[in-house]
Amino acid sequence: MGALRLPSLTSLSSAAAVIPRHRCRRELRLPFRRLSSTNFSAAETELPTTTTPPKPKIQQDKDRVITPRSQDFNAWYLDIIANAELADYGPVRGTMVIRPYGYAIWEAIQDYLNVKFKETGHSNMYFPQFIPYSFIEKEASHVEGFSPELALVTVGGGKELEEKLVVRPTSETIVNHMFTQWIHSYRDLPLMINQWANVTRWEMRTKPFVRTLEFLWQEGHTAHATPEEAEKEALQMIDMYTKFAYQQAAIPVIAGRKSKVETFAGASKTYTIEAMMGDRKALQAGTSHNLGQNFSRAFGTQFTDETGQRQHVWQTSWAVSTRFIGGIIMTHGDDTGLMLPPNLAPIQVIITPIWIKTDEKSGVLDAASSVKESLQAAGIKVKVDDSEQRKPGWKFNFWEMKGVPLRIEIGPRDVSSRSVVISRRDIPGKQGKVFGISMESSTLVGYVKGKLDEVQSSLLEKAKSFRDSNIVDVGSYDELKEAISQGKWARGPWSASDKEELKVKEETGATLRCFPFEQPQGTKKCLMTGDPADEVAIFAKSY
Amino acid sequence: MGALRLPSLTSLSSAAAVIPRHRCRRELRLPFRRLSSTNFSAAETELPTTTTPPKPKIQQDKDRVITPRSQDFNAWYLDIIANAELADYGPVRGTMVIRPYGYAIWEAIQDYLNVKFKETGHSNMYFPQFIPYSFIEKEASHVEGFSPELALVTVGGGKELEEKLVVRPTSETIVNHMFTQWIHSYRDLPLMINQWANVTRWEMRTKPFVRTLEFLWQEGHTAHATPEEAEKEALQMIDMYTKFAYQQAAIPVIAGRKSKVETFAGASKTYTIEAMMGDRKALQAGTSHNLGQNFSRAFGTQFTDETGQRQHVWQTSWAVSTRFIGGIIMTHGDDTGLMLPPNLAPIQVIITPIWIKTDEKSGVLDAASSVKESLQAAGIKVKVDDSEQRKPGWKFNFWEMKGVPLRIEIGPRDVSSRSVVISRRDIPGKQGKVFGISMESSTLVGYVKGKLDEVQSSLLEKAKSFRDSNIVDVGSYDELKEAISQGKWARGPWSASDKEELKVKEETGATLRCFPFEQPQGTKKCLMTGDPADEVAIFAKSY
Repeated sequence: MGALRLPSLTSLSSAAAVIPRHRCRRELRLPFRRLSSTNFSAAETELPTTTTPPKPKIQQDKDRVITPRSQDFNAWYLDIIANAELADYGPVRGTMVIRPYGYAIWEAIQDYLNVKFKETGHSNMYFPQFIPYSFIEKEASHVEGFSPELALVTVGGGKELEEKLVVRPTSETIVNHMFTQWIHSYRDLPLMINQWANVTRWEMRTKPFVRTLEFLWQEGHTAHATPEEAEKEALQMIDMYTKFAYQQAAIPVIAGRKSKVETFAGASKTYTIEAMMGDRKALQAGTSHNLGQNFSRAFGTQFTDETGQRQHVWQTSWAVSTRFIGGIIMTHGDDTGLMLPPNLAPIQVIITPIWIKTDEKSGVLDAASSVKESLQAAGIKVKVDDSEQRKPGWKFNFWEMKGVPLRIEIGPRDVSSRSVVISRRDIPGKQGKVFGISMESSTLVGYVKGKLDEVQSSLLEKAKSFRDSNIVDVGSYDELKEAISQGKWARGPWSASDKEELKVKEETGATLRCFPFEQPQGTKKCLMTGDPADEVAIFAKSY
Repeated sequence: MGALRLPSLTSLSSAAAVIPRHRCRRELRLPFRRLSSTNFSAAETELPTTTTPPKPKIQQDKDRVITPRSQDFNAWYLDIIANAELADYGPVRGTMVIRPYGYAIWEAIQDYLNVKFKETGHSNMYFPQFIPYSFIEKEASHVEGFSPELALVTVGGGKELEEKLVVRPTSETIVNHMFTQWIHSYRDLPLMINQWANVTRWEMRTKPFVRTLEFLWQEGHTAHATPEEAEKEALQMIDMYTKFAYQQAAIPVIAGRKSKVETFAGASKTYTIEAMMGDRKALQAGTSHNLGQNFSRAFGTQFTDETGQRQHVWQTSWAVSTRFIGGIIMTHGDDTGLMLPPNLAPIQVIITPIWIKTDEKSGVLDAASSVKESLQAAGIKVKVDDSEQRKPGWKFNFWEMKGVPLRIEIGPRDVSSRSVVISRRDIPGKQGKVFGISMESSTLVGYVKGKLDEVQSSLLEKAKSFRDSNIVDVGSYDELKEAISQGKWARGPWSASDKEELKVKEETGATLRCFPFEQPQGTKKCLMTGDPADEVAIFAKSY
């Protein structure tokens, strides 16, 4: 499929006479439609400088191209982010500005999860982001996991600090420091909190949304009186994330348990949801950790139980981040651009009024506005694109590229017949188009809601069959290697050692993504050793 | 009035045998009810160390005391914050943990403002918090204002950074850096965005909510084609804050313009809302800045106007922070504890079931639960305190201390008569109590809503008359000094120089809070110089 050519999106003016002056400025960034991967990622070249990445290649506004997905998945991904105005580079290497359209997806994620968190008894709160360096050192595997990635504040108010401060990469340590002050007796348990916050990890290989120096997330932290309760909580939260992924993001994640090698630094068990992206790489889209007593022992987080004995609390932590937006882009997007699941789309329906003669204009605009009001009143997120600078065809392309699930067209003939034309983003051309749907609120609202549900299910089904056709059941290491070399996921019985797991990574580039909760029946033999195995594991290359 | 004695609130268990073991731990903080002001603030002693403030004085659990407000306003404030579980100290000096009850007030503030911001055309987004140091230096008065307060990241991923990074104290610089990339033509304007974020200012004198090293806020940033539009926006936003303060927080702020001396570092004009706290000190509770072209010239943020000319954009920025929570505490609280305006209260109604005999219990609890459901269905934030560890009297004190606007008591006789007793937090004793309100949803919901409205207006009226009785109109510097020495606000005509304004500060400790928008009629003579004056100004001591 050829490259789709889109006109310029941000700069509606391209007065040529002006550009040279603009170019003279030192801070100049011309309107650009492409995020060059080398600007953001240091995968190929680790940039020593922290600021002012090399200028992106400047392209002519009028012939912006979204790289076809099949041709270069990474370039396609960056093109989508730039063209759909989801994010932009920050001035510091590896940082990202989340633009309004991208942030609105995050807000939809927050709205859903916040309700679920509160329904299950969690309260939001806020911990400081500066953590004394000594805290990070208290839990042995935690410091090992995080120390290479820390950003340190060493100067405050013009003075060198006596103890350097870590900009939080995650909050288990400071949470435990505070929990020691709040938890005294079993009556204070369970203590279940969540915070929405920014976190910082000094990553060398960065990619917008997927891995950035600073990102936004929610981190839940709970403390319980028994290991059973903690385990139940950790499972409850991964289940909540799984339902969120399926029902809201239309991403058919595979939920399971991480291997010991892949477990979070400081956790006893890590549960994960693994999503298959359009290039068949795995994306870890959310995790829930059973922390056992690792942090409570390191920090002395104790309670008095019903018999008067002091006990260390049992803990969990769990998180979903702005990375999820990357997962949505890479699951559903196509050569035309972004494709958003209706449940998380900032705009679910775009109305494009169409007129040629001036005397048609007011009738068409009135109809568009009245349709908008009906839909809005029914809680549908709708926008009318009544700008006169662009032709309808341009608008169709633009909003398809932005991933809006449904388009309603209203022209003069539709006004006469009191009907509209509805097009689905996920089914191109005439097949996705329905004519003559009544404009009357009583008909239209139900119809549109039904269509949005259809798109939502259809995206999930499509992603599911893509996923299933790209998971290969393997019985031997050779079969695993074959599957991975074809870019697929390999699923097979596994009971081998950590060392053998690392060998797979070295030799194939694939990691053990998880032991899925859903396991096939029957006896199994480890694909690597031939020994009896209790479970199958999934191996895949990943982000 | 004597000190109110409250039993321990967090630690329901006080098994004495256990405490010694607990005390042995290195990280020990016993349950404490008092935030000692020296732990948090370095007003008296500037703590050189950044971590582990001195241990707070440990008090006996059973005899916790809220310092009377009249006796020591600051101690009272810290006692409220500790007892009502609004916040706690973070491990790093001057940082604060916002606990669920305090954070829920912040969420109520966010919910209200977010709707208003979006209604007026602003979009939320997110900028990175790390700003290259060179950015801060670009706008001359901005760097002067902020450089003493910066926290600097100098190490990332184990390496010394080539350019140190500022942890954002505010985002004008990075916003402008990005705006240069997004704004090209007049068609891209106005650009109106907002972000909810944490910011860091290395303050030496800190106080929970009022001034902390890190705090949460929203910062709006807009760019316009004309100075008139920017001015209109700056005024629109201070007006929105004013309405929020009056209608939601029941704080009768005085809105006005800052003097040149007090204008934000980098702004052309700063508008402010000034609130009078219970100790009659002023609190700057929100600001809106007309930035003119100061940042757009420093960063080269230009657009092509309709005639093809390049122009610098005209900008605004505006913010409200978690400081507002401090304002609510210090406006409405009394010796009994916190008093929350119903519109921002996390719990608007607390239901206390009362029973003595076991056979009364289920009837009372059923009635409590059915009342709760009726109120909840009507959108009222309601909680039943059915814990059996505490007696009703203890619960009354506890929830009054937490500032819950209304209490509903339900005992066995109420169950028989199908009625409830309702008490107002803001009117102590029998005067605030009404008996025999029908439990029937049709009656009760309307009654409770009406009562909540009454409390809301009553808090505002009380604060208004307190404010008005503590503002003195002055015509001379002697009168100003007299008013300030009495702890009041002085309002008088002012057209004197910056130098004279600073003299007032040095000699009286009061600063020029604002030139109020509401001005008295008639000719005026400057209280300091006797020269003609256009406006009256308000002087006061402030936080």
